[in-house]
Amino acid sequence: MGTDASGGRPPYRQELTPVHFLERSGYVHADRIAVVDGERRYTYREWRARSRRLASALRAAGVGPSDRVAFCALNSEPLLLAHFGVLQAGAVIVAINTRLTASEVGYILRHCGATSVFYSPELEPLLAEAPVGLRRIDIAREFEDFLATGSEDPLPPLVEDEYQPCAIDYTSGTTGRPKGVVYHHRGAYLNAVAMALDMRMDSQSRYLWTLPMFHCNGWTFTWAVAAVGATSVAIPRVDPPAIWRLFRTGEATCFCAAPTVLVMLANDPAAARLERPVRVFTAAAPPSPTIIARVEELNFELEHVYGLTETYGPFTINVAPPGVEGLSLEERARLRARQGVPNLLAGEVRVVDEQMRDVPADGRTMGEVVMRGNVVMKGYHDDPQATAAAFRGGWFHSGDLGVMHPDGQIELRDRAKDIIISGGENISTIEVEQAVVSHPAVMECAVIAIPDDHWGEVPKAFVTLKPGRSLTAEELIAHCRTRLAGFKVPKAVEFGELPKTSTGKIQKFVLREKEWAGQERRIH
Amino acid sequence: MGTDASGGRPPYRQELTPVHFLERSGYVHADRIAVVDGERRYTYREWRARSRRLASALRAAGVGPSDRVAFCALNSEPLLLAHFGVLQAGAVIVAINTRLTASEVGYILRHCGATSVFYSPELEPLLAEAPVGLRRIDIAREFEDFLATGSEDPLPPLVEDEYQPCAIDYTSGTTGRPKGVVYHHRGAYLNAVAMALDMRMDSQSRYLWTLPMFHCNGWTFTWAVAAVGATSVAIPRVDPPAIWRLFRTGEATCFCAAPTVLVMLANDPAAARLERPVRVFTAAAPPSPTIIARVEELNFELEHVYGLTETYGPFTINVAPPGVEGLSLEERARLRARQGVPNLLAGEVRVVDEQMRDVPADGRTMGEVVMRGNVVMKGYHDDPQATAAAFRGGWFHSGDLGVMHPDGQIELRDRAKDIIISGGENISTIEVEQAVVSHPAVMECAVIAIPDDHWGEVPKAFVTLKPGRSLTAEELIAHCRTRLAGFKVPKAVEFGELPKTSTGKIQKFVLREKEWAGQERRIH
Repeated sequence: MGTDASGGRPPYRQELTPVHFLERSGYVHADRIAVVDGERRYTYREWRARSRRLASALRAAGVGPSDRVAFCALNSEPLLLAHFGVLQAGAVIVAINTRLTASEVGYILRHCGATSVFYSPELEPLLAEAPVGLRRIDIAREFEDFLATGSEDPLPPLVEDEYQPCAIDYTSGTTGRPKGVVYHHRGAYLNAVAMALDMRMDSQSRYLWTLPMFHCNGWTFTWAVAAVGATSVAIPRVDPPAIWRLFRTGEATCFCAAPTVLVMLANDPAAARLERPVRVFTAAAPPSPTIIARVEELNFELEHVYGLTETYGPFTINVAPPGVEGLSLEERARLRARQGVPNLLAGEVRVVDEQMRDVPADGRTMGEVVMRGNVVMKGYHDDPQATAAAFRGGWFHSGDLGVMHPDGQIELRDRAKDIIISGGENISTIEVEQAVVSHPAVMECAVIAIPDDHWGEVPKAFVTLKPGRSLTAEELIAHCRTRLAGFKVPKAVEFGELPKTSTGKIQKFVLREKEWAGQERRIH
Repeated sequence: MGTDASGGRPPYRQELTPVHFLERSGYVHADRIAVVDGERRYTYREWRARSRRLASALRAAGVGPSDRVAFCALNSEPLLLAHFGVLQAGAVIVAINTRLTASEVGYILRHCGATSVFYSPELEPLLAEAPVGLRRIDIAREFEDFLATGSEDPLPPLVEDEYQPCAIDYTSGTTGRPKGVVYHHRGAYLNAVAMALDMRMDSQSRYLWTLPMFHCNGWTFTWAVAAVGATSVAIPRVDPPAIWRLFRTGEATCFCAAPTVLVMLANDPAAARLERPVRVFTAAAPPSPTIIARVEELNFELEHVYGLTETYGPFTINVAPPGVEGLSLEERARLRARQGVPNLLAGEVRVVDEQMRDVPADGRTMGEVVMRGNVVMKGYHDDPQATAAAFRGGWFHSGDLGVMHPDGQIELRDRAKDIIISGGENISTIEVEQAVVSHPAVMECAVIAIPDDHWGEVPKAFVTLKPGRSLTAEELIAHCRTRLAGFKVPKAVEFGELPKTSTGKIQKFVLREKEWAGQERRIH
């Protein structure tokens, strides 16, 4: 299997790239089902052929090495396929968050410099501000025709350097403008292997796509599933009764989910204890004792992982110490709330003070969580300044505040950056504040996260009005709705004076203290 | 966790090295047992401290970067520890095959240029021809004192390049002189992860050391076990009743074994069906239908793997197609006799003709098995000529002859090089022939492998005596015993004319035809 071209490399040099996973599964797991999407299903033999078709069709359409190919699509077979076909063409996939506004999508398309965008027809309005001249391919009506212009023949390897970019994932930064996180082939390959190991997937597994594929390329499961010859079950949206049917029939054996999705599934009327365990990764907030008890009851095997867009999704995993089974639910929940240790292939994590010194590993002293290793991003696309700031001292600065426990597990306590995580989506408080103050009646405001049983966290705005002006919460929310993606709109508004330091700086911690009273940590 | 020194590297660059596995398990699996060796057992916390001690003691003793540190030792905790401590010192481990002669061990010690050798006291006679001035450390009496000269403090990372050598493994070449196969950190790391995946090991697993650690560094399980925080159970020799006790109590859950060892275990009076399955990797010869039936009866999960010293041990693994369970025993045995496909992290394998063109994937046309990828050796130590020959055309030439099946699995049929594999050990027929012809009564000879129920293959010598001389098989065997390691001595001798071509070349295939009549392939 393979071509003769050695390209002058010694035989022990082979670039690490997830493209290899599908090329291999295309014959090793040839007759197993690679993807199920509605009525469509493809074996790995067929799917590898589709990936090669996509790659050669892109090349024929003028997509060159390191060119960006954007997707604005719901979870679906074409978006999953693009994680191989685009990379196999030597190009870079940009899977855009479909919960953003047309203005943000337009910004991302311009910033990444994509020459084509593939889109789900129901999302076409999101392309309203896309650059003129961008090639658009409707994945429902035009994708198969596009593939038909390609060939199933093996392609020459177009990944010449494993540090070459393979994906750009846009994240809401603190500046309010999305930043393009650049992934390289090596990191994608290694984190995908780590996910396969930690999820304990093999060719019998069936991975359910509850997590959006645009989130860190599905936390690298887009690649991990194909690595081990497992089956991807693509669903366009989270539909709890349908998901419970898939669990019960064994059509889905593992998945990843934001806590919101987990709560939704656990509380659905269709929820009932499963005969066979279903493995699930959750992130973004520590699972509560209630949810831990409930998922155990339902026979989910829950793993708590943690990471950021900048770390290809999960960087750490909570590892239970020996003997944890014998502990009380509360005690287990306390241990499992920890974000844990780097996965086998990730690298290192530290909790440091402002001089980059390790804080004492006492489970109490707060510091910033920093990481380094093979699954740290290459940098921010076209933003050397932000990259340098994030990489100061040779470590990636997460902006998350936490503690180091004596056993080497980290635990988050707060976020240094003004980020709210709501239903698994990041929201920049600064962006929300800019929308709020754009209302002519508002003088100033501060936005913080408040705990929410359904979404984990939601934004709340504290607002001081201009003298003599009046405004209702409903009016302000309606105003924000015209400027922000739905999930970013404040769910609560409180009018009044803002607490400030003597120098006039708003003291957000005072607001947080009040809203989070009685909670052990400041994230949810 | 980790030090502040970034060494000017960006945070996403971290060299792949198995040293990381123990540094990580030292806190992630701190309280789990890393190694059991007789009465001794160490947790990962303790064992990481021992590795750091060994590394710093070696540095203090003058061992510098890329220096070779030799071990002539039985399977034991010190030899296993050296797979981390020596590498952590930036040095290279040379684990010598303890079944060789003093002359061969002497050659290896000189050739690799080791400055120290650690040895099991019972193997001291093997050092009779060791170079003068070599530092010797008796691992039974002096190892703990040596460790005591080191420190448990974290070491600065001494692996500056993942392609830096980490081990040299000597193999019997066709020239009769052992060749030093150089492994690099990246290959060792990646193959160890592949072994962990394919063996399905996790922190609950207990790996039994039936396979010698000097065989391709235990097929990289020396590193794989520590990667996942599993337990290594070291045993100095294969003692079937003791091993069955370990299986029954759950003290051993997986192992690797040459077919000889597997047959020995399966036929032992203590053999009885296990309640919990035990996973086992076997290589060197396809498992027979008899052994497949027997291991299924005993509740072993048998995996058939294939590789060479030059590929860090297992490169391919037999992957069962869907539905194999329903087939007859004979049919399953036929499918499982295939050497299979490259493991997930290995790379590519082809079967080629002399012009490096792929033979048809028809399961019939023979060609040479060639490989490339991250788990191919870096080259032969101090032997650029042999390296260039092995790497011609950009692929590693295995010297094994086989076929490619339509499903992409390879199957060996014969060996191009004159290698006999007996009880898992490689024997060069040329070396045996040199020993035979060194007898003054012998005119010429040819040595081939013949099938053997216990050892798989054993060497047989076909001998023509000088005119007027006489010699018995027993006398010739006794003579060989003075020149060869025991396992290389011919087990059978036949006197008479040798079949030759018109140009006088000995036709070994004629001899093989006769000895292997009725067998489907020429390896056993």
